[in-house]
Amino acid sequence: MKSHVSALFTDLYELTMIQGYYEYDNNPEVVFDMFFRRQPFGGGFSIFAGLDDLLDQLEDLRFQADEIDYLRSLGIFKESFLEYLETFRFTGNIYAMAEGSVVFPGEPLIRVHGSLIEAQLIEGLLLNTINFQTLIATKSARVYVASNEGKVMEFGLRRAQGGDGAMSASRAAYIGGASATSNTLAGKRYGIPVRGTMAHSWIMAFSSEKESFEKYADLYPDTTVLLIDTYSTLTTGLEAAIEVGQRLKAKGKQIGVRLDSGDLEYLSKQVRHRLDEAGLTDATITASNELNEQIIHQLITNGSPIDSWGVGTSMVTGGDAASLTGVYKLASKTENGTAVATVKVSNQPAKTTNPGTKQVYRFRDANGTPLADLVALA
Amino acid sequence: MKSHVSALFTDLYELTMIQGYYEYDNNPEVVFDMFFRRQPFGGGFSIFAGLDDLLDQLEDLRFQADEIDYLRSLGIFKESFLEYLETFRFTGNIYAMAEGSVVFPGEPLIRVHGSLIEAQLIEGLLLNTINFQTLIATKSARVYVASNEGKVMEFGLRRAQGGDGAMSASRAAYIGGASATSNTLAGKRYGIPVRGTMAHSWIMAFSSEKESFEKYADLYPDTTVLLIDTYSTLTTGLEAAIEVGQRLKAKGKQIGVRLDSGDLEYLSKQVRHRLDEAGLTDATITASNELNEQIIHQLITNGSPIDSWGVGTSMVTGGDAASLTGVYKLASKTENGTAVATVKVSNQPAKTTNPGTKQVYRFRDANGTPLADLVALA
Repeated sequence: MKSHVSALFTDLYELTMIQGYYEYDNNPEVVFDMFFRRQPFGGGFSIFAGLDDLLDQLEDLRFQADEIDYLRSLGIFKESFLEYLETFRFTGNIYAMAEGSVVFPGEPLIRVHGSLIEAQLIEGLLLNTINFQTLIATKSARVYVASNEGKVMEFGLRRAQGGDGAMSASRAAYIGGASATSNTLAGKRYGIPVRGTMAHSWIMAFSSEKESFEKYADLYPDTTVLLIDTYSTLTTGLEAAIEVGQRLKAKGKQIGVRLDSGDLEYLSKQVRHRLDEAGLTDATITASNELNEQIIHQLITNGSPIDSWGVGTSMVTGGDAASLTGVYKLASKTENGTAVATVKVSNQPAKTTNPGTKQVYRFRDANGTPLADLVALA
Repeated sequence: MKSHVSALFTDLYELTMIQGYYEYDNNPEVVFDMFFRRQPFGGGFSIFAGLDDLLDQLEDLRFQADEIDYLRSLGIFKESFLEYLETFRFTGNIYAMAEGSVVFPGEPLIRVHGSLIEAQLIEGLLLNTINFQTLIATKSARVYVASNEGKVMEFGLRRAQGGDGAMSASRAAYIGGASATSNTLAGKRYGIPVRGTMAHSWIMAFSSEKESFEKYADLYPDTTVLLIDTYSTLTTGLEAAIEVGQRLKAKGKQIGVRLDSGDLEYLSKQVRHRLDEAGLTDATITASNELNEQIIHQLITNGSPIDSWGVGTSMVTGGDAASLTGVYKLASKTENGTAVATVKVSNQPAKTTNPGTKQVYRFRDANGTPLADLVALA
């Protein structure tokens, strides 16, 4: 996000290395590949995301005077190099997948063509942005698929990893298949539809559950979704919701109810039955409470009549796969005017890189359905 | 982080609820508790962190004109309420643990005393800040303990969840026991020592591994840590490092080497043996590569002669526990001038709250060692 743009948002070793490249006048044109080594979540695909945010940041990347002063204070940088940083701008070229593309391990998601110094400096920023947003877009797509392409809302702000852990997660979740976010600032910044219901504290702030529901329905007759599990879901909560629902129905409106605890399969079936009995066949059921794609798949398989899904923690953090293993590796450098492929080898075969400047070709059948990707020298 | 301060960084339902409180003139003095329900990482303690960042943000919290315009565009807020938001400031009182405290489930880490409207609005911001930084400070403390209170460096910028996923993780990791970060901006902003070595691309940018090491040692003779696994750790990498190390030693300097792949126990023992044989007994060994507290504990238990640890992904994301389950619950509200305890009950016993305004007392023995915590009505 723009607010974070700072050329100091980089690992110290990038700065010590580029001082070396500057000092030794070793600044050839190079190509770096960004790719990842294995699919997250034990899945079969990932969804590429984060590119627009990355490009925004690269356009604005520069060292401010106080940042140069900070580097000076470390005692490891020469004045000539600090002066060079004052005018530093990123001028390289970026070749990348389109955001929202299905992507696979080992294929370059981004190729950076530029001078060694500029391409090296941006490593951390690039990986930070792409690794996280690709992780979350992938998680969101998995949840969306599990919901039978249903109505998934991203509710993760409070459990996200920091401020733009939340902000860029909202953005990436939307790319992956979520249809709305609870995060109001993400709604404004990225144009994502914003949605919400009520917290338990709303109910507790009134003298009775029923009063709290009535007051809410009076104020928001077109978007009334009542949280019915504050005291007792199937007795006081559901009964009060039905009363309010019938009153709204008489005015041509409909309600929704939300379940945020307990056995969602049992409760949703009971609630559906009682709502229908009460004539509220158009009332919707929203479920939340530590949902993920496995739980949603199970609930749907077992016939739970849930209309929309609020997914928080696992959607915005990845849950038990909290990172994408994306890396950024030197693929080629120019020597005496000729591009020379470079390689890193390793006793861990997965850590050996594919040398040279590469292009990904996606083959499709006559209907446009993808068949296979081919990674070849460009 | 300051750059994120926006009163719109809140779930939409907080805004629809506080419009209701405003409309119905239901804005009593209240107390909210922030607490968490279970220890992360299957551990026995957590380390409280995030408070200073939270307080910074609360001080600056306000709605900007363009943010009010955005809310107006949603068509669910009345002009009178939007005008009220224009002058909104947080004026409540915060009672909290000290950052760095050892904390346990069920005890209030923060008590917010304020009007219902202001206390409700900040729920997301408070949970976002405290949940994440407490998670990471806890992870860092676990890694620090596993390293026998050794030298742990946080190397996570590239795998962190967004920009301040990285920034606030660096801060929290330092609170938890890390002694340095690779993140230069975090070094500047929070006064954390910054450290780094070199990337594989440094080695690949020169005509030979040995040349790259020599050039680095010439430039940074006092902080030379050579990454020896780019081509072959125990042959070319170690041999070149030993040559450079002996040359530096003749000038009264010492080197370090870094291992970033392979069997760290085997390699570190071999490397130690060969360094010592070469007279480089003061050369240090740094290890990295998807480390966490379990791996570090195992390496130390098996006698791996590793001097410092670069911990990235799991340190800054929590790894397989990517979130702290902190919640924010209404504990008390004032009715007719009297504080009335409030409670949420649930079929899930863990989700039932403890009513009333509470204080945590920590009992210590004569040496100051903590014995037990008592949560009592304040």
